[in-house]
Amino acid sequence: MDRKEFRDLATPAEAREAIRSLALEAGTERVPLAEARGRVLASRIDAELDVPGFDRSSMDGYALRARDSFGADEAEPARLAVVGEVHAGVEPDVEVGANEAVEISTGAVMPPGADAMVPVERTDRVGSGSTDRTNGEATSTEDGDVLVRTSVAPGDNVMFAGADVAAGERALGPGTWITPREIGLLSALGIEEVPVRVRPRVGIVSTGDELVRPGEELTSARGQIYDVNSYTIAAGVEDAGGEAVVYPHAGDDVAEMERILREAAQECELVLSSGSTSASAVDVIYRVIEERGELLLHGVSVKPGKPMLVGRLADSAYVGLPGYPVSAMMVFRTFVSPALREAAGLPAAATASREGSMAVRERSEEGRLRLMPAGLIEDGDGETLVYPVDKGSGATTSLAEADGVVAIDPDTDYLDAGEPVTVELFSPDVRPPTLLGVGEDDPTLNRLLDRLENPRYLAVGSRPGLRRLREGVPDVAVVAGPIDREVDAEHIGRWSREWGLAVPSGNPRGIEGLADLVDRELRLVNRTTDSGLRTSLGLAVADLATERERSRESLVEAIDGFDLGLRAHESPARKVLAGDADAGLVLGETADRLGLGFVPLGEQDVRVLAHPDRLEKPGVAELVAVLEESPDVEI
Amino acid sequence: MDRKEFRDLATPAEAREAIRSLALEAGTERVPLAEARGRVLASRIDAELDVPGFDRSSMDGYALRARDSFGADEAEPARLAVVGEVHAGVEPDVEVGANEAVEISTGAVMPPGADAMVPVERTDRVGSGSTDRTNGEATSTEDGDVLVRTSVAPGDNVMFAGADVAAGERALGPGTWITPREIGLLSALGIEEVPVRVRPRVGIVSTGDELVRPGEELTSARGQIYDVNSYTIAAGVEDAGGEAVVYPHAGDDVAEMERILREAAQECELVLSSGSTSASAVDVIYRVIEERGELLLHGVSVKPGKPMLVGRLADSAYVGLPGYPVSAMMVFRTFVSPALREAAGLPAAATASREGSMAVRERSEEGRLRLMPAGLIEDGDGETLVYPVDKGSGATTSLAEADGVVAIDPDTDYLDAGEPVTVELFSPDVRPPTLLGVGEDDPTLNRLLDRLENPRYLAVGSRPGLRRLREGVPDVAVVAGPIDREVDAEHIGRWSREWGLAVPSGNPRGIEGLADLVDRELRLVNRTTDSGLRTSLGLAVADLATERERSRESLVEAIDGFDLGLRAHESPARKVLAGDADAGLVLGETADRLGLGFVPLGEQDVRVLAHPDRLEKPGVAELVAVLEESPDVEI
Repeated sequence: MDRKEFRDLATPAEAREAIRSLALEAGTERVPLAEARGRVLASRIDAELDVPGFDRSSMDGYALRARDSFGADEAEPARLAVVGEVHAGVEPDVEVGANEAVEISTGAVMPPGADAMVPVERTDRVGSGSTDRTNGEATSTEDGDVLVRTSVAPGDNVMFAGADVAAGERALGPGTWITPREIGLLSALGIEEVPVRVRPRVGIVSTGDELVRPGEELTSARGQIYDVNSYTIAAGVEDAGGEAVVYPHAGDDVAEMERILREAAQECELVLSSGSTSASAVDVIYRVIEERGELLLHGVSVKPGKPMLVGRLADSAYVGLPGYPVSAMMVFRTFVSPALREAAGLPAAATASREGSMAVRERSEEGRLRLMPAGLIEDGDGETLVYPVDKGSGATTSLAEADGVVAIDPDTDYLDAGEPVTVELFSPDVRPPTLLGVGEDDPTLNRLLDRLENPRYLAVGSRPGLRRLREGVPDVAVVAGPIDREVDAEHIGRWSREWGLAVPSGNPRGIEGLADLVDRELRLVNRTTDSGLRTSLGLAVADLATERERSRESLVEAIDGFDLGLRAHESPARKVLAGDADAGLVLGETADRLGLGFVPLGEQDVRVLAHPDRLEKPGVAELVAVLEESPDVEI
Repeated sequence: MDRKEFRDLATPAEAREAIRSLALEAGTERVPLAEARGRVLASRIDAELDVPGFDRSSMDGYALRARDSFGADEAEPARLAVVGEVHAGVEPDVEVGANEAVEISTGAVMPPGADAMVPVERTDRVGSGSTDRTNGEATSTEDGDVLVRTSVAPGDNVMFAGADVAAGERALGPGTWITPREIGLLSALGIEEVPVRVRPRVGIVSTGDELVRPGEELTSARGQIYDVNSYTIAAGVEDAGGEAVVYPHAGDDVAEMERILREAAQECELVLSSGSTSASAVDVIYRVIEERGELLLHGVSVKPGKPMLVGRLADSAYVGLPGYPVSAMMVFRTFVSPALREAAGLPAAATASREGSMAVRERSEEGRLRLMPAGLIEDGDGETLVYPVDKGSGATTSLAEADGVVAIDPDTDYLDAGEPVTVELFSPDVRPPTLLGVGEDDPTLNRLLDRLENPRYLAVGSRPGLRRLREGVPDVAVVAGPIDREVDAEHIGRWSREWGLAVPSGNPRGIEGLADLVDRELRLVNRTTDSGLRTSLGLAVADLATERERSRESLVEAIDGFDLGLRAHESPARKVLAGDADAGLVLGETADRLGLGFVPLGEQDVRVLAHPDRLEKPGVAELVAVLEESPDVEI
């Protein structure tokens, strides 16, 4: 296939310009007032009426002619004849003459003749036969009289017609973001249908033979993985004020893929696909672009995101995102989201970026713009620290471990520890964690974490957890088993856990202990060397070696599977459950939960160690309080 | 009716506690992943599977046994026999033996026997007959060989099963606010139904004979006004994570009101009503509370909001808000919204408050907590100034002119200019204006404002506008007609506008000029004295008096309606349109727009004056640019 050649990578600025040139605006529509919140006004709203539409009493009391109250005070009230009453929502059927008053309720129409009102608190109602008349001219009526104990000026306690909003006034400008207060003003003007910008429709097309939609069956042996990008990018589109349309997954059927692309291009302002590893998908996209659209650029000098495609598909814009979830999210956040927000008329969200300083030194030297996924944490002084998050290409959890992106200039060789940086959050709603913990995965810990406000815990294992605590980024490390090195940290909690071997339910092979693994033909599944359980198992093997006066190595060699370690704490149990092994190194709690038999081998301590400068930090104090309350935990 | 007595007003803290005690939580539900954005996780999500579920190639290239690449470099590549290929989404049908390699694509399953992969960029494919074999043992195959130009270690460029998320790991904690990145993690785990907290349902019941729903017909003579609170509070409820249910307006039908209250109490976690002026509504609410619920408090020591009611209606919580829209919004924001957010599981939004300093001195001396509506504006240095907004009780536009609430302590007698204060924004999405203008209402100005990013313009009239500019709060003032006092301000734009008399279409009374108003029996509708048009009309009358050698007063007295002034620039024209007057003081543009006849009386200048310290401010610079571009405007 002939492809248009792009010899040089486009600069990030050119990519932004190309995406902006795609004109993602989607026109205007009218929505009911009740659905207008969060939308953007398409045109100016001028008041078509006065608010209020009549001279309105601001309080409960009496309407009168101001001049009849002149000179009145507590000692010398003015006495006026009450000639009627007016309630809110009713047309007055009475006029106010000299030395007359009309009882009036808040919000009612001022009766003709009255030019002010006096609140009820400054009056006393008296019978018509009362004798303390101080102001001789009033004629008593069947309603009796009122003593007015203050003097008022014309207009006092009256809101005149149009005083709030006047007919013809500019009420709201085009582009106004509609929040509750704007809903209030629109309500006051009686507007029930609001002209707003249409949310740009964004079609999301996923390709790739290996992708399976969440909820469907996954076959790992065939290399299938769940499709992360479709719903993630859809949520990002909605954050940016767009309307996401997720199209059915096309798999590797080229005709179907082409049909879906054309359908999306017809229905949407923008079509996004995220990079497929299959060359056939890229070929289809190229063909549709070449036949029906235009390719504006292919390849941008940014990492990740180099193979980004920007073009038109028929009447729609098209952007091809990288395939890896974190890369796709970063490129979306950096290049697509701003253009979408602009088309939707949304301003940049105030919470969409955070300033902080680098927690560690980070080398860059990419020679092109680098988008670095970053996490945020506050230090003991409440300052925001920024640390790079990198679990390797393809890791989807980096998404949950990172809060946003730091864009690093091509000329920058490194960011020094302490250097100020700006983190563009993945979305305005991202909440950086209140506590950052690292270390061993442990069921008791997981329950404790559930009681904290917004913790982030990275189950990296005991040893890497301690190492990271020494580097100074996390607030706490959780370590299982013996600690073989001095650490400058506060011990804030300790509990113990039972460990041993998970065996099939009923223990059909009759495994009684570690010796069976050495002496018999049994297949073990171990944990990785980072794990606290692995350390305890190693020590138990060493003890057995001493007892038998043999070398530790010889025993290890005798155990089938000792060197095969799985990272996840449930994985050995799952291998036993699946019939792939006779025994797995697990916690007693895990074996119980999965309905397996359990051969206990020992107990080990789990310790929570806190960064000594962070004890006063609210998130750490919250953890300390939860540890203190927990019956399982010793302080 | 017997009412439970509350002798003392509750403190604001007691009111908060009473509302918090109402237990607004609404349980949990499961929603599809595609609808989970913005929701709050109801329970912890642990990984039920490893991600990836298999050892996965991170790049395109060749899978091999790492030891077969040892020592290889550019000069001395290792030559391996290619024995097959594996693509993403397909189960490998080949094993890798000694000195063999398998072509592999990104994301594909590592074939058995291989423990590392080398990226395609570091290899060259050669035919099977090639002669530069450097590593003698491989057997050439029909697929040919590959030259590996780098050495790799076991695990290089492979993501092992569970390396991203391990089965059994705590993935997301309860209470997590679901943003796109959490959607990503849930997708990766294959979860398509997410357990979330139900949004608390909030029923909004409006009472009051005078209220009409937006979109319906309004009869001002009967004192009707549009219902502002229902949709405004509904939008506030949604901002706070609740689901608003707006019930039909009950008017004054007591039985209907009671039916609606009981229905709302049955269907919702919380029922809100906003204070009606009709005693009957309060009686009905009392009756339902007494019969079916409990009154927790009546009256809170806060201004506004003193008559607040808190209680239970059957199984629902109940809060009665003040009737005036700004008061209702402030009390909702201060007391109800935090309890709703807590029940919904939403954290306080980062953008929900702003720090600033008072722009002017403000007296308080209420003796109780005062909620002061406040506007925000940046000064020339980018500092946030806070100014009180008070258009009088009942003004709905204060909502659009204010950005939030400042809570002032009972003991505080005044806030000094420059004093730091915290403004709780009406909603997290409230955007303080980029430019604050005050002064004359003018159609040309309105069109210019439409081109600015986020202006706020208060059409207070020319004289009050100048006064406020002198006080230093607004950025610009717009003044029509002659300026009779020196002002320290920069003139940044000027245009002229034609003014005169609006008359019925076709000018049936044959009005030719001002003299007709003096000499004939004609009814005029004038503007208020704040208006620039009124000033120009006054000068024209003075000129006519000089010409006739008469006093100005005598001419004014001869004009029927000269002293009656309407605030709104369109109102005089509308009076003429309605047949209530023969002539109205208007702009030529207004008469044209409303299809009226027009008798020109003169032209007047409109000037834009800027605060001298604010010329560099982006919002003012934007206005200057728009003025410079506009053909109607002289600089």
